[in-house]
Amino acid sequence: MTDKTERMSIGTYLLDRLHELGVRHVFGVPGDFTLKLCKLLEEDGRIQFVGTTREDTAGFAADGYARRHEGLGVVLVTHGVGALSTVNPIAGANAESSPVLVLSGAPGRQEWEERPLIHHCFGPYGSQIKIFENFTCSAVALNERSHAFGQIDQVLESIWNKKKPGYIEVPRDLVDREIPFHAQYDSFRRYEASDEETLEEALAETVELLSRAESPMILAGVELHRYGVQNELVQLAETSQLPVAATIMGKSVINERHPLYQGVYQGMVGPAETREQIESADLLITLGVMFTDINLGMYTAQLDPNRMVQVNQGEITIKHHKYSRITLKDFMNGLGRRVKPGTYRSRLHMRWSEEPNDASPAPRSPEEPLTTSKVIQILNQKITPELSVVCDTGDCLFAAVDLKVSDKTAFFASAFYTTMGFAVPAALGVNCASPETRPLILVGDGAFQMTGTELSTFRKFHFIPVVIVLNNGGYETERVILDGKFNDIPEWDYGSVCRLIHYGKATRVRTAGEFQSAVDQALADRTQMHLIDTVVTESSRGMRKLAEEISRRV
Amino acid sequence: MTDKTERMSIGTYLLDRLHELGVRHVFGVPGDFTLKLCKLLEEDGRIQFVGTTREDTAGFAADGYARRHEGLGVVLVTHGVGALSTVNPIAGANAESSPVLVLSGAPGRQEWEERPLIHHCFGPYGSQIKIFENFTCSAVALNERSHAFGQIDQVLESIWNKKKPGYIEVPRDLVDREIPFHAQYDSFRRYEASDEETLEEALAETVELLSRAESPMILAGVELHRYGVQNELVQLAETSQLPVAATIMGKSVINERHPLYQGVYQGMVGPAETREQIESADLLITLGVMFTDINLGMYTAQLDPNRMVQVNQGEITIKHHKYSRITLKDFMNGLGRRVKPGTYRSRLHMRWSEEPNDASPAPRSPEEPLTTSKVIQILNQKITPELSVVCDTGDCLFAAVDLKVSDKTAFFASAFYTTMGFAVPAALGVNCASPETRPLILVGDGAFQMTGTELSTFRKFHFIPVVIVLNNGGYETERVILDGKFNDIPEWDYGSVCRLIHYGKATRVRTAGEFQSAVDQALADRTQMHLIDTVVTESSRGMRKLAEEISRRV
Repeated sequence: MTDKTERMSIGTYLLDRLHELGVRHVFGVPGDFTLKLCKLLEEDGRIQFVGTTREDTAGFAADGYARRHEGLGVVLVTHGVGALSTVNPIAGANAESSPVLVLSGAPGRQEWEERPLIHHCFGPYGSQIKIFENFTCSAVALNERSHAFGQIDQVLESIWNKKKPGYIEVPRDLVDREIPFHAQYDSFRRYEASDEETLEEALAETVELLSRAESPMILAGVELHRYGVQNELVQLAETSQLPVAATIMGKSVINERHPLYQGVYQGMVGPAETREQIESADLLITLGVMFTDINLGMYTAQLDPNRMVQVNQGEITIKHHKYSRITLKDFMNGLGRRVKPGTYRSRLHMRWSEEPNDASPAPRSPEEPLTTSKVIQILNQKITPELSVVCDTGDCLFAAVDLKVSDKTAFFASAFYTTMGFAVPAALGVNCASPETRPLILVGDGAFQMTGTELSTFRKFHFIPVVIVLNNGGYETERVILDGKFNDIPEWDYGSVCRLIHYGKATRVRTAGEFQSAVDQALADRTQMHLIDTVVTESSRGMRKLAEEISRRV
Repeated sequence: MTDKTERMSIGTYLLDRLHELGVRHVFGVPGDFTLKLCKLLEEDGRIQFVGTTREDTAGFAADGYARRHEGLGVVLVTHGVGALSTVNPIAGANAESSPVLVLSGAPGRQEWEERPLIHHCFGPYGSQIKIFENFTCSAVALNERSHAFGQIDQVLESIWNKKKPGYIEVPRDLVDREIPFHAQYDSFRRYEASDEETLEEALAETVELLSRAESPMILAGVELHRYGVQNELVQLAETSQLPVAATIMGKSVINERHPLYQGVYQGMVGPAETREQIESADLLITLGVMFTDINLGMYTAQLDPNRMVQVNQGEITIKHHKYSRITLKDFMNGLGRRVKPGTYRSRLHMRWSEEPNDASPAPRSPEEPLTTSKVIQILNQKITPELSVVCDTGDCLFAAVDLKVSDKTAFFASAFYTTMGFAVPAALGVNCASPETRPLILVGDGAFQMTGTELSTFRKFHFIPVVIVLNNGGYETERVILDGKFNDIPEWDYGSVCRLIHYGKATRVRTAGEFQSAVDQALADRTQMHLIDTVVTESSRGMRKLAEEISRRV
């Protein structure tokens, strides 16, 4: 947009900029410090305000939106009570590099300085931004003396480039304030360019290493989702015929039924065959990988930097030296052009087993009680490209390593920060960003008790997720680490949520046969949301392995 | 406790100290960084760990506990995902001077510094305490090089004296760590003493002013609850025969049916007769009052410092000069000893009207539709000293100005920070602190959608609150300020919560008659929780007045 006017209101400028970045939904709860912005959104009509039941769920929804949207998620909240309720989801977005903008209303600066004891406030002017500076890449508080348009641009550009959350505090008296508007819009939809010579040298060295490798492999990570280069990965893999594994944070960066895909690598915690392949590769090219404890199977991963090319946005590390100023996209495209098609067909290449990781046999009888692994096994028969899997923290996350997702960027989880209660609200954001998808929500009972009622907001859009509540009566992960009565949670009749919110159909299942038929029914029915209260009796192998590793440190 | 041992574990020391301060319940959600502390609590048995569904509700519960307990509330949460979810309730406790201790687990410092990408963490070592420093009176992170016992004492003493939240970060590797233990326990249950000469001078000046006053009055505030001097207030009022009004934050500091009580003063927003009395008083003694925007009816209060003696813990302001180092208790007791009984019977003294503020007539027919004011009017006929009223933010808070609570410190609300979703979890804390009370929870539908499912935790204790959900389909306060579709919320069948959590009995009412009979049934039934889904058609006068004042500033 290049419309030039003499003056423009701060609120309108903000809306224009967000719209230009592709934002069509903003999540939040209205409050008296944001009512003007809510009203502006309503009157303008280009961006929809999606009211959630709480502010933390708005934060998770914005995070889910950002992950699917490949642009930006936005949360709009009032000062104090609203913004401080988003601290946990936004810190999580920071940990997992999800580009979420927090728009916080605020009292006018002058009214605040004159009389500091204003409702919703917990400290003097400037208290809130000091909190958000700890987990955002850029944070500004607009005020009547600041260059508001420049500040807004600074935060948006930083979010776009760094894929981290940002923060803009908008005092209520400035929303309508018109200020001179000189500059032509400058688009943010670009990244700092690679340095050509550095790129050439890094590519040459990588190609040379590849030419001598006998069992090279690719390990794909979360940044490929964030920088939207999933197609570049497929192209590089298919051209080079290099096998690809993913970290749990990178999961679904490639269609998991792709013949070159080798499963999720997670050290001792993940599938044994994937581990063997990755750890015996004589050259491992990691693309956009974050080396977090969970990605590394609680540090059980055995990776040798001397056999690695670690590619991240802005920095490539080969063995022990670094190249900077190279984008993921340029490197991946450049490498794709330089490899000799087919030459690197690694001797490691094999088809990822259809059998789940813990090799428990397929359910033999429909009366068999359910385990989390069996749930995953059955879902693997049902998953279609239409489904986006949104997975909460706990057993379902670790079992989901074995789930085969059919579309790219169709698996969403808080797989590093591991915050419970992520899945239901994040699925709302995913669904807003891609209304054509149908969320398959995997959520433990503990997590569902935290944010499950946010399903209420799906009703506004007639979204029809399939919600699988894995019901084992407690915090299973922690039971494995250190058990006590504190890990038990009260029993709920989860299906009654549908009655509470006047939406959806509920089923309770206890056996493999019941679960299969409930899933079939849910997938066949495109008229309503389905919630399957799934009583499981045993945790997954992946979770037990992970919990064992954690318990050594407790 | 004065048990002397050579060495003591950090976890045990912490428990001993909390127990000594009267703490018998700790609220939280277990996580792998706190499991050892949870286990220690379970094995020790003196303090019960109360698992809530979420961490923010644990924060509100601890706040409610602190307010009723007149000691300390404690929340125990894991690092990052847990602690950051308490930021909003703890900032609220800071704003409203409620003494809540946040105990946050953490990774061991060494493991963190070696490998920073640990799950639940969002930044380098030390990130979290930087956040909490913004809204606590004292915050420490224990580490292997610190004097842990001294640090713990420092935070607890600060909380005790300042009635503000504090923060202690306990790395998981230090819970069992035994360190030398020299000192004898030093009790915190005392405040810095008043300076005798300063006290005498301030008292003499106040008595002199009183002797010349014709219409003196007392305005009582929140600090009287926090410092536990409600009885001193009654004694002072009865000795002097001075009439007493309260701020909304101070509400229930005296039995509201006490003949000297004149209602809640809130500028133009509160009852007209109370306003007239307070503003025409020729001497106003404010005891423990915070001059917040809501206490002052959005600054419609007309108070003249030249006719005021403002007494706060640690500081007294007469006209424009200040005395420091005086405790509330010493001042109130001293004044009580110096006044001549009966002399100051103010010409303002009158009995607080039984009629509610907005003077709407008592329901004439049982078929009459309900308004929030009528709900309050009916409740005024039913309230007994057994009930503690816990009130959420919104219309119910502003209407509750007219509610007559029968016991001291039996009204709880977030009346300054005004965070929605406070009431249900805070009532859990109130009920744990005084199992003999029965909470009467007043909560709007918007707030109930935020935290209503925390009712689940009441079941563990067989607590039997009476929950009144004021159902008007949206954020009523904001509708009055600036309306739009964003203020509507989805319709819920609130009573179905009882089915969801397997607890309680639900009724839906639409008329005065139905409401009366539902309340009667609930109060007569001591076997279960009752939830009354109360459809109301109109907001209270107090709320409309307040919202009008706010809307001038939006």
